[in-house]
Amino acid sequence: MSELTTREACVAADAADPIAHFRERFTLPDGLIYLDGNSLGVLPAAAPARAADVVTREWGTDLIGSWGKNDWFETPVRIGEKLARLLGGSEGAAVATDTTSINVFKALGAAIGIQAEDHPERRVIVSERENFPTDLYMVEGLITLLDRGYELRLVDGPDDIDAALGEDVAVVLLTHVNYRTGRMWDMAGVTAKIHAAGALAIWDLCHSAGAAPVELDAADADFAVGCTYKYLNGGPGSPAFLWLAARHQDRAQNPLSGWWGHNVPFEMALNYTPSDGARRFLVGTQPMISLATMEVGVDIALEVDQAELRAKSLALTNLFIELVQTRLAHHPLTLVTPLDESERGSHVSFRHPEGYAVMQALIANGVVGDYREPEVLRFGLTPLYLGYADVWDAVETLRRVLDEELWRAPEFQIRGAVT
Amino acid sequence: MSELTTREACVAADAADPIAHFRERFTLPDGLIYLDGNSLGVLPAAAPARAADVVTREWGTDLIGSWGKNDWFETPVRIGEKLARLLGGSEGAAVATDTTSINVFKALGAAIGIQAEDHPERRVIVSERENFPTDLYMVEGLITLLDRGYELRLVDGPDDIDAALGEDVAVVLLTHVNYRTGRMWDMAGVTAKIHAAGALAIWDLCHSAGAAPVELDAADADFAVGCTYKYLNGGPGSPAFLWLAARHQDRAQNPLSGWWGHNVPFEMALNYTPSDGARRFLVGTQPMISLATMEVGVDIALEVDQAELRAKSLALTNLFIELVQTRLAHHPLTLVTPLDESERGSHVSFRHPEGYAVMQALIANGVVGDYREPEVLRFGLTPLYLGYADVWDAVETLRRVLDEELWRAPEFQIRGAVT
Repeated sequence: MSELTTREACVAADAADPIAHFRERFTLPDGLIYLDGNSLGVLPAAAPARAADVVTREWGTDLIGSWGKNDWFETPVRIGEKLARLLGGSEGAAVATDTTSINVFKALGAAIGIQAEDHPERRVIVSERENFPTDLYMVEGLITLLDRGYELRLVDGPDDIDAALGEDVAVVLLTHVNYRTGRMWDMAGVTAKIHAAGALAIWDLCHSAGAAPVELDAADADFAVGCTYKYLNGGPGSPAFLWLAARHQDRAQNPLSGWWGHNVPFEMALNYTPSDGARRFLVGTQPMISLATMEVGVDIALEVDQAELRAKSLALTNLFIELVQTRLAHHPLTLVTPLDESERGSHVSFRHPEGYAVMQALIANGVVGDYREPEVLRFGLTPLYLGYADVWDAVETLRRVLDEELWRAPEFQIRGAVT
Repeated sequence: MSELTTREACVAADAADPIAHFRERFTLPDGLIYLDGNSLGVLPAAAPARAADVVTREWGTDLIGSWGKNDWFETPVRIGEKLARLLGGSEGAAVATDTTSINVFKALGAAIGIQAEDHPERRVIVSERENFPTDLYMVEGLITLLDRGYELRLVDGPDDIDAALGEDVAVVLLTHVNYRTGRMWDMAGVTAKIHAAGALAIWDLCHSAGAAPVELDAADADFAVGCTYKYLNGGPGSPAFLWLAARHQDRAQNPLSGWWGHNVPFEMALNYTPSDGARRFLVGTQPMISLATMEVGVDIALEVDQAELRAKSLALTNLFIELVQTRLAHHPLTLVTPLDESERGSHVSFRHPEGYAVMQALIANGVVGDYREPEVLRFGLTPLYLGYADVWDAVETLRRVLDEELWRAPEFQIRGAVT
């Protein structure tokens, strides 16, 4: 990508981009360069009509009949099948339901349950210190609840995972692409190590689903969870997903054993009998309007060639990094994201001593990224609707914010509760 | 209500009904008598515009900025405050989040945790055999997960609750109004018994919130959960709620300890520190579109005088029962719902040996109720948008279905997965 040294070259690259046409499938605000699809993806153009249809026709007119007529009952499984296909996990099965945090709890509870039968002496859960905090919080909550000697062991990264995989490890919970640094784990290689050590692997795909090819079957993953409101453009707080390998489907017990995961939910039986497959990881009634918009985003993702998606994602992140390193070299920006393409997701992060204020100034100037503690400027480069010229313009705006010290304005120093 | 012996008298009663005007706030399909608001409430007229606004403007235009600008971060707490007010629980606090099943798990986990500190020898959870099954399934899942001698003890009803409240009881989980029979527990009286026995009370309000006055503070309840898609007209699968008394807010630990319940969620701290109040019962990112339509329904509920609501609810259920008993006395319909008004919620149920087919025929003739095993015809009489003439017409249609044996048609015999 070193040939993209002018804006004109970027415009030409956009014209030659085989997946540029996907931009038309989304509604983006005029004049905004949105580099925060890694936090909340943009609106698919078809989503408003779908939301209106589920509100007005399915809810308003068909009412309770929608459970059958409009397939509400099968919706979490139907979307789950699509997600399993997208994530290279068709040998296993998924459901679209609840939140990532809650699905971490379910997957972890199920994996611990399997290990408690096979290897009851294994009581350690390994995760990454820099994992998205809620994953660690959910482990903490489960360990406290279990109250029988389970413990969390944290690693700093790929370099010390081997040392952590002792004979006491039951489960390893890792996030495929780190939310802050954008660093990607080698899912297949690390899963092989985890299995060799006798442990089970749960992968959190929040920052990879829809942004980078995922091959759950090929990687031999045990469980996976993730959200759909980032790169899958499912809408604000759209339900998450839980996937599990075929080999675990008969054994895995959902600790949150609710009616929708019951084998015969409408017999109103006194005792819980789990449904087959991934369906047992459903719990309670799901938000159908949010599920409906989510499916619009998932359907678009399924149309994209994953190799083309990955090629463009890397081209965009390479371009961003190169432009910052060549055109903003006089500013104290430190790359946090790996230069090695095999270790990179679809967002790039830089540290800057005044990171918070810089990001506020950048947003005020029409480039939306986000800020993450400590000092990190994070830019999501979602290949479905961003182009090379967008990257050029974003870096130029960042240059202006830094060259002209726009971030020094008092209004950019004030910390809000949410960035 | 014995004076309502003609359709004309019912029409006159509608004209004199002080809350009849609320019907204008909802969109009901023409020609349909919807007696299933106890399963999925109808569409508030303002909901489509609100859904469109959150999709198009909040998501589409404001994007990630909506967390602050459109108050997404505070939405579950804001709606929770409204629900606490509606349910007479303003001394405590609530959040609108997740599903009833998951909130049962959280409340139960928290209540067990409190008791484990105060009375570690108490290991029994009491509930009702005829409780909505998912509540029992969630207890079962938690007990299995804990794996340290907790057990579920089931009672048949108010008559044997005293005998069940031994010194071994930690928590009692009851549903205020039974989903099948419509029988209502005396919340204040039973909570007093539960407390006298040294246990904590969790009330499931799925079939009472929005349908009957609830006084959580006055009843001295410990925890409450419930859904919002029935009598609160929040939309299909709209998020549920969890309420807890002020006295438990500093001690109650949410076993599902996710990021949104963290004290400083955006500091990305390594360890979980619970937020104050009910907020700690938030877990992961919530479906904002479904939350938005839900708030429309809750806002309407808050406008209704609860005494007028209750008076009309009882008048409607009395009328339905009387009309069935006087005009359909020649058919084998057995009332399941208590005749005593103090023990009745806002739906009425009758058993009929051919209940399933009768309900299908009734639906085909424009009266939507639902069927619940075994043999139960269930009719939700939601006072906000149903009138006396609706009840008259519904009973007349039921009479026609039975007199003309319309239920014998082959298509009404086929059991679907969902009714």
